[in-house]
Amino acid sequence: MKKRELRSTTAVVPCPVVLLSVRGEERPNIITLSWTANVCSDPPTVAVGVRPKRYSHRLMLEAGDFVLNIPSSRQFENVVFCGTKSGRDHDKFEECDFTPIPASRVSSPMIAECPINIECKTTRVIPLGAHDLFIAEVVAVHVDEELFESMQESTQFDIARLNLFTYVPLTGEYWAVGDKMD
Amino acid sequence: MKKRELRSTTAVVPCPVVLLSVRGEERPNIITLSWTANVCSDPPTVAVGVRPKRYSHRLMLEAGDFVLNIPSSRQFENVVFCGTKSGRDHDKFEECDFTPIPASRVSSPMIAECPINIECKTTRVIPLGAHDLFIAEVVAVHVDEELFESMQESTQFDIARLNLFTYVPLTGEYWAVGDKMD
Repeated sequence: MKKRELRSTTAVVPCPVVLLSVRGEERPNIITLSWTANVCSDPPTVAVGVRPKRYSHRLMLEAGDFVLNIPSSRQFENVVFCGTKSGRDHDKFEECDFTPIPASRVSSPMIAECPINIECKTTRVIPLGAHDLFIAEVVAVHVDEELFESMQESTQFDIARLNLFTYVPLTGEYWAVGDKMD
Repeated sequence: MKKRELRSTTAVVPCPVVLLSVRGEERPNIITLSWTANVCSDPPTVAVGVRPKRYSHRLMLEAGDFVLNIPSSRQFENVVFCGTKSGRDHDKFEECDFTPIPASRVSSPMIAECPINIECKTTRVIPLGAHDLFIAEVVAVHVDEELFESMQESTQFDIARLNLFTYVPLTGEYWAVGDKMD
């Protein structure tokens, strides 16, 4: 197995892709992010890296909360749009035809069209360099009813119905999630 | 879009899967982890959530460094093994037929069989609850030569050759990465 050493880079793959929604004084904003993970099971906690120069960074500090909306492949175009345009110049909810709906425990809105919505309250912000790390507790999770198996009582998701995709920073490509491993 | 509210849980999906290798006094150990992400681009930084009760937690504190090895589907069985057995009772390198090779800038060994190896130096450890968050700078990255496109000069990976897979904590399932999105 011959190896090639690269310059030091962000090489954890594959990465989740989230649409982070956050309230704002004028209007709520959405930003596409991939520097994010579940980092603690109890209390359920996420970590999110955001560049201080991004418009949403200030909104996140002001709101003290945000929602991580997990997109399906159906929202792929909007994911690219929200990752390349600034909320300074665009009303992303309106331009993406996304519906803001109230969250149950945070002040930021959720994106109705995304199949999973994760309400988060920021507990600390750690400067790392190009990105600040927002550590936040998950306070509520909402899932589209249609993702559950057919039985009314079921608590098991059918992951295939999510049409998830993933980001690969080494090439800047998005790849669909395929089949379940046996 | 009717939504169902769940109990608060770790719902960011899909998640990367890594084999974290770390040196130890007696022998190096390997632990399968999914609570991990790239969190800062400059300096390249990763965050990794590890339960304090895990055997590797102490080794990570003692070593001050570790390697994140990205497995391909070929290593799937060993990923499950390293995620369910403890290094207290098992020599995981030996039992998985994994080859430890020296890293270039950290004291922990890399797993030769994994197509990507990310050398990391811990910069801080933040207790979050069930998990401690290790924040670490990426100091070197190694990639299997065979992952590059055919041309000698190429710096572009062929991601399909990685045979990546991902973890979905909502169901505890592993799913293969499928096709590139257009």
